[in-house]
Amino acid sequence: MSKKDTSEPELIFVPLGGCGEIGMNLNLFGFGTQRDRKWIIVDLGVTFGDLTTPGVDLIMPDPAFIADQREDLLGIIATHGHEDHIGAIARLWPMLKCPVYATPFTANLIENKLAELGLLDEVPLHVVDLGARFDLGPFDIEYITLTHSILEPNALAIRTPLGTVLHTGDWKIDPEPLLGDLTNENRLREIGEDGVLAIICDSTNVFVPGTAGSEGAVRESLIELVASLKGRVAITTFASNFARLTSAIEAARANDRHVCLVGRSMLRITEAARETGYITDFSGFVTEEEAGFLPKDNVLYLCTGSQGEGRAALARIASGDHQHVTLSEGDTVIFSSRIIPGNERGIYALQNQLIERGVDVIDADDHFVHVSGHPCRDDLATMYQWLKPQVAIPVHGELRHLREHVKFAKKCQVPEVVMARNGEMVRIGPGKAQIVDEVPSGRLHLDGEFLVSDYDPALKDRRKIAYAGVLVVTVTLDDEGQVLEDPRVLALGMPNEKGMSGRSLQEVLEADVDGTLETMSPRQRRSDGDIEQACRRALRQRMRNSWQKRPQIEVQVIRLEAV
Amino acid sequence: MSKKDTSEPELIFVPLGGCGEIGMNLNLFGFGTQRDRKWIIVDLGVTFGDLTTPGVDLIMPDPAFIADQREDLLGIIATHGHEDHIGAIARLWPMLKCPVYATPFTANLIENKLAELGLLDEVPLHVVDLGARFDLGPFDIEYITLTHSILEPNALAIRTPLGTVLHTGDWKIDPEPLLGDLTNENRLREIGEDGVLAIICDSTNVFVPGTAGSEGAVRESLIELVASLKGRVAITTFASNFARLTSAIEAARANDRHVCLVGRSMLRITEAARETGYITDFSGFVTEEEAGFLPKDNVLYLCTGSQGEGRAALARIASGDHQHVTLSEGDTVIFSSRIIPGNERGIYALQNQLIERGVDVIDADDHFVHVSGHPCRDDLATMYQWLKPQVAIPVHGELRHLREHVKFAKKCQVPEVVMARNGEMVRIGPGKAQIVDEVPSGRLHLDGEFLVSDYDPALKDRRKIAYAGVLVVTVTLDDEGQVLEDPRVLALGMPNEKGMSGRSLQEVLEADVDGTLETMSPRQRRSDGDIEQACRRALRQRMRNSWQKRPQIEVQVIRLEAV
Repeated sequence: MSKKDTSEPELIFVPLGGCGEIGMNLNLFGFGTQRDRKWIIVDLGVTFGDLTTPGVDLIMPDPAFIADQREDLLGIIATHGHEDHIGAIARLWPMLKCPVYATPFTANLIENKLAELGLLDEVPLHVVDLGARFDLGPFDIEYITLTHSILEPNALAIRTPLGTVLHTGDWKIDPEPLLGDLTNENRLREIGEDGVLAIICDSTNVFVPGTAGSEGAVRESLIELVASLKGRVAITTFASNFARLTSAIEAARANDRHVCLVGRSMLRITEAARETGYITDFSGFVTEEEAGFLPKDNVLYLCTGSQGEGRAALARIASGDHQHVTLSEGDTVIFSSRIIPGNERGIYALQNQLIERGVDVIDADDHFVHVSGHPCRDDLATMYQWLKPQVAIPVHGELRHLREHVKFAKKCQVPEVVMARNGEMVRIGPGKAQIVDEVPSGRLHLDGEFLVSDYDPALKDRRKIAYAGVLVVTVTLDDEGQVLEDPRVLALGMPNEKGMSGRSLQEVLEADVDGTLETMSPRQRRSDGDIEQACRRALRQRMRNSWQKRPQIEVQVIRLEAV
Repeated sequence: MSKKDTSEPELIFVPLGGCGEIGMNLNLFGFGTQRDRKWIIVDLGVTFGDLTTPGVDLIMPDPAFIADQREDLLGIIATHGHEDHIGAIARLWPMLKCPVYATPFTANLIENKLAELGLLDEVPLHVVDLGARFDLGPFDIEYITLTHSILEPNALAIRTPLGTVLHTGDWKIDPEPLLGDLTNENRLREIGEDGVLAIICDSTNVFVPGTAGSEGAVRESLIELVASLKGRVAITTFASNFARLTSAIEAARANDRHVCLVGRSMLRITEAARETGYITDFSGFVTEEEAGFLPKDNVLYLCTGSQGEGRAALARIASGDHQHVTLSEGDTVIFSSRIIPGNERGIYALQNQLIERGVDVIDADDHFVHVSGHPCRDDLATMYQWLKPQVAIPVHGELRHLREHVKFAKKCQVPEVVMARNGEMVRIGPGKAQIVDEVPSGRLHLDGEFLVSDYDPALKDRRKIAYAGVLVVTVTLDDEGQVLEDPRVLALGMPNEKGMSGRSLQEVLEADVDGTLETMSPRQRRSDGDIEQACRRALRQRMRNSWQKRPQIEVQVIRLEAV
């Protein structure tokens, strides 16, 4: 599609992340004519690498499209502090160089990340109050308090001369969020009355019927559950859910247990909550060392690692590698969390390790110990009723979520529904909302300390080697084609069994290369290219007939002057 | 633990696979005194590799313990034809060399595997009738028909002078299995009346309340569902569930659709079912080519690939790579299957690909299109009531399943319950059932065509390289320590960005090696070990300071005679 040539101002939405995958949100809003358009970014998050991306821990949206026009980028506005919404700000800021806006708790988390990368003094980070309203060029932006599984979740009402966009961020309707205000229903209804042109809405739980439930109910359940347990109790949950942490703390206090935080994120989030005034009472907290000296029935550990992350506290405890914390027969671990799809095997392996030690495992399958932070279908319907938007654009989901959300919004009688994938430019107005263009989008991998495209051959090579290994052949000749040294074959990642007539794979392959060189004429051996090709062919054939795999084959020709 | 020195005959059970993981079953029963003990193997299956075992597709139990005493091994008895019960027979038979027993359909599947490995003429494969009873040394073995998600599922009553062991194999209580007989409840009750010393029982669904449900109900639902659909319909399911395949075939016939089988396993299972008389009517079947010419509303594809397997039919259809089968806007794929834990992301990715093509996706989350083949808690309770065993030994599960099953069996008032992990030797009798020894157990990986231990360094190396890449340094010197050629560094699996003062990683590393060699004295350079150590140290440090990873580093020293 090519851009329509127009000089009237347009209201534009482009998802560069989050529309086609879970996580890694980057929502781009534009206002103005094609020649004079201003942009804002709402949220700039990461997603986490997995076994399909070995060596890549963090993945983020490629911001090239907006980085190329950063002189027209007015700011990055964070709705809340989850990694999939703020985790890429520090890493990508050098490509964007614009002000950042966030509420106090979220700003605290962003600050930590900026400090880690030494950017604290460079980035203009504006702390805005909950419920604040401010102008950014043609955009009049208002924060509206919602509820979610983190402190300070916000929707944004983005007012423009062409109408109001309500970006929900992540949300649910929690009647008892425990910390922070209730969903600001009145303000949402007022905005709905004033007229909402478009809603950009969370799709995570669109397949789940009913409502998401409340943190208050989980707290009651945890208090009761912990009361029924003897021995040490460990609760693992997402550290970012500070309301849940306070529930675990309440469960400890109600049951004569001291609280011990285990894991870096637990300490960091608690520190952020302290600095922003969400927790003041640390009575009953003990250090890991102190906890070790307490009677078993008087300890409650709050641990990171509910997703089976290999380096998190719980994994180290389960494998017996934790310096201070030991769990054993008669102790209990409560997984106050859900399983993020893809983490099943890792979590089950962790649970099996705990069971091997005699530890009891309780999770959301058996007990009421978790509620989701995202809107289920009844919550979505309520939001649509409050706002009565003209246009709905689902975000924050894989294609299967977005498509279901499109169907659902139509059922809710939203007049226009647009399914936009990453990189698709939606003109929200004027006129009927529709996709009008496609812009560059993609993913950046943090590979070691390098930010590279997800097409970078390095990862592809590593994956290939992971499957079939690599052979490195080194041949040393003089420039007349005389072989100076026995060829070497380095076989990496291959079973080196003495299978073939008593010789190891390496011996067999070195003999193959030797034989190959012998069958070549001195003239052929004067050509590096011919040698490479012949060696490659011989080894490929050998591997096909023996190991039945196709390793990567690298041939190095070392050429010395003839004596 | 050391073996108790005894000369009285004992009844022994040793799981070598399946107790501590899903799949890869190997149950070993022994009878006799320690000096004169005969053995039988019940089931010998595989499990499948995943992203944690790149390049390893098949994993099987290490049979070394029984292979070492194969002169006392009387036979391998297959309960049914699933891969996790028969998939390792052909591969491991050369280590065991004993007769194999199976019912006709299962034997047909085993034969195919033996033929693939050229073992058909060597292996004594005995086809036994359903309900057959025969002696193997001290063991009197009776097949008892159960129901499951495959044709011809059987329990085994294994009678010995010390009592009867009932090995359930995989089972459920399906009131309407569609093909094959009902669960032989009468026979199980009779055996229960006669007295069961021990039950060895399936733990797969021990966390699931209720009953497993019936294939008959799924058939009705599929017929109705297909009636409601326009366009092409594809149903994907486990090919081995032939009752489900016939349900899909009935759904096609009831709705004026021709059946087209797509994928190797679909064809192979249907062929096995034809050869053993389970299907005779192939009316309405068409080939992939023929199906392409039919009106869309008159086709129903039955496809492999319900678990998102990359090379299966559905994956190729979804990616547009299938030679004959195309699905697009208005077509529907029904996943008549469950998600095997660990396959979530792959299945969702496949569904997203289909949705990208405009195809509708229906699965067990939205519609009643699948029932499990394993016993849920009510089914387990029923079985325990029928058999009233003295001893229960849960098998076929991870530790978390086994432990839950232990609790459950105790609730069912089984007097003795033993939790045995792979390699633990249980003396069922005489006396109280208990673990008396531990024998060697482990896993073999099929890596290419080599069967290697799961401790083989090859896989560990490949995984390490997958995370951090590998550097191969080649240094060429004469035996006086004179450098003859510029050092080479091959950097595999690393982003090779020109990041460092305009030079590529390779250039930087080669300069590092060069510099390292220069700082060494000629004497030091005469030592290969010193060179290796110095290069390794220099590159490790460079990588830590730049890429912040720890690649594998290989140093080759090529030494030529001084001129």
